[in-house]
Amino acid sequence: MDVHQVLRMNGGSGDRSYAANSHIQNKILSLTKTIRKEAIEDLFSSSSSSSSSSPCATQGLAIAELGCSCGPTALSVIEEVVDEVDERCQSLCLPLPQIQVFLNDLPANDFSNIFRALPAFYSKLKETNKDKFRHCFVAITPGSFYGRLFPSQSLHFIHSSSSLHWLSQVPADLNNGALTGPLNKGKLYISKTSPLKVYLAYLAQFQRDFSVFLRSRSAEIVQGGRMVLSFVGRPTEDPTTEEATHQWELIAQALHSMALEGIIQEEEIDCIDVPYYSPSREEVKLEIEREGSFLLDRLEVFQVDWDATNNIQQNDECSLLKMTRGKEVVKTIRAVVESMLADHFGHGIMDELFRRYEQLVEEHLLRMNTQYSNFVLSLLRK
Amino acid sequence: MDVHQVLRMNGGSGDRSYAANSHIQNKILSLTKTIRKEAIEDLFSSSSSSSSSSPCATQGLAIAELGCSCGPTALSVIEEVVDEVDERCQSLCLPLPQIQVFLNDLPANDFSNIFRALPAFYSKLKETNKDKFRHCFVAITPGSFYGRLFPSQSLHFIHSSSSLHWLSQVPADLNNGALTGPLNKGKLYISKTSPLKVYLAYLAQFQRDFSVFLRSRSAEIVQGGRMVLSFVGRPTEDPTTEEATHQWELIAQALHSMALEGIIQEEEIDCIDVPYYSPSREEVKLEIEREGSFLLDRLEVFQVDWDATNNIQQNDECSLLKMTRGKEVVKTIRAVVESMLADHFGHGIMDELFRRYEQLVEEHLLRMNTQYSNFVLSLLRK
Repeated sequence: MDVHQVLRMNGGSGDRSYAANSHIQNKILSLTKTIRKEAIEDLFSSSSSSSSSSPCATQGLAIAELGCSCGPTALSVIEEVVDEVDERCQSLCLPLPQIQVFLNDLPANDFSNIFRALPAFYSKLKETNKDKFRHCFVAITPGSFYGRLFPSQSLHFIHSSSSLHWLSQVPADLNNGALTGPLNKGKLYISKTSPLKVYLAYLAQFQRDFSVFLRSRSAEIVQGGRMVLSFVGRPTEDPTTEEATHQWELIAQALHSMALEGIIQEEEIDCIDVPYYSPSREEVKLEIEREGSFLLDRLEVFQVDWDATNNIQQNDECSLLKMTRGKEVVKTIRAVVESMLADHFGHGIMDELFRRYEQLVEEHLLRMNTQYSNFVLSLLRK
Repeated sequence: MDVHQVLRMNGGSGDRSYAANSHIQNKILSLTKTIRKEAIEDLFSSSSSSSSSSPCATQGLAIAELGCSCGPTALSVIEEVVDEVDERCQSLCLPLPQIQVFLNDLPANDFSNIFRALPAFYSKLKETNKDKFRHCFVAITPGSFYGRLFPSQSLHFIHSSSSLHWLSQVPADLNNGALTGPLNKGKLYISKTSPLKVYLAYLAQFQRDFSVFLRSRSAEIVQGGRMVLSFVGRPTEDPTTEEATHQWELIAQALHSMALEGIIQEEEIDCIDVPYYSPSREEVKLEIEREGSFLLDRLEVFQVDWDATNNIQQNDECSLLKMTRGKEVVKTIRAVVESMLADHFGHGIMDELFRRYEQLVEEHLLRMNTQYSNFVLSLLRK
């Protein structure tokens, strides 16, 4: 699987697009707002007294949004950050610095929604504050964040949300046993029935990828710069814990039912695994310590319901509501994973696959309320 | 006409795409290579002895390619510039600086070809020289170059080719005479039959646009920075000279023949004019002097045949070859102007329009060899 080509959210703005099905990602952004705010406050408070690399001392401030995807979320984060910078500057009686914004995602991402949204974004800045408009310059940086994207010491604030649980590739060890065949038969991700080797292969890939990510960013960010990252993590050390695996378990189950009916081959399921990993807190902390350039200021865990409706009480919900939620949940997941699955199984079976998946999700939601664990990290470049 | 929306080269990579029909633009790039080379030499020679804003003294070099369009040309210019910088650094025993490249065009441009070409571009850099690969970072800046695109004093070298003859808008004065009706009846551009007011409206729009362009760039480029611009100009002061007008004359003629047959309405031709202007040398020089931030090092004029086959002698060509050339010429022009004409006349008549246009161009080429006059300017930020 060429992750650079097939890992992309559904483009456009139609019913199945990521743009129309990113409630979860928006919910996560609203839950992490305070942490971004604090990181920017810290950036200004530390820089007002410090080196030439601070945003106050230099001509401008450079911000990167990594894994911006194709939805409207990327520009709303930028607007929020620009507002926060403006507020900070006003309270410190500083002029608003020029802000160069870089939005990043893989080259196969559909950036066209962002291009279309840019004129309205600039108009809004202009309406609220002409200074903000005059001081904000948006650019797109296509490429993998598992590698260098920007010149050395050129950024002050880096943000990434709902992206870092995607790996740079499917762990190579999973499918290269010529004698033994695929390691993770019948599954797409670590499962209770997976051999231990599967977990170890995923862990090794996460460690490689996350350390490359940290090393690349540590070269790009100025000393004293701040980074806020949020991504799916798992609440326990056990990698087979239901919360970390059951979205993939249910897809595997749907695929298996199709294999039983001869729509696909069982072997097709055996030889696909997803380039995804939800690490534990300890795994994340260990890589940050090993890499050594960043100080972990905060690591918080928060839960988001599969359909982002955390405010609904489980007992209050009738089956009908659960059915509707199942549909919503699957639309959200489909917008994210369809390109990858279609690349392997063909576009022709996608409707049938997601119909079956929806049924399984609905049954699942009748039994239990299901949540994603999300980590949000605030880091300081030492 | 909303130029930001409708002025875009034909996207994709098919038979009618700009990517497949940009021979003229490539020819122009090859003819201006020496001037870019000299500008980069000058950038290094002036900066080796000068201020903190020089590429040698700062951490890196920032380059902008304005009006990059969707074809493969943009990245080939960047490759050439990176090679030239590398050569300069080697000859001056300097380490290769980090090079941040910004490719710009209007948000409606089809950037996807560039995104697709990026991995191969990086691979090529890596193969030829790992240092070049490690030091080159490409970003896309969507927006109009008739306004600010980059933070102040953030660029060292600015390049634009085959773009600045496009205006930011159709001159407003052409169509706002409520009593008199459209000024430029039956024509798309300045013509021998156009009232003088048409020329004056175009000239005023060019002056406004070019001065905004220069003012924006003068804010963005460092002192001592260099800018190389090439665009269509006209060889004489007379704005109705054939060389400057006949591509539009022939389109107007094709449209007129369709109006005679009732396929379109004559009024539809009356109320469209193109956001295009080919200035004279004096008009260009005057705006540069008025704006005052740039020193015009060089202004050269060179001719390019309509089909970029300057090496073919007119007398050697048989009619058959001319017919083929007519087809090629129209494909080149169609890739550039179709989106704009289709927006006004509808997509339905485009095939018929360009069929008629092709016939007129073929007849025209039988009578005379037709050329574009191009200007190339090398400017120094004082």
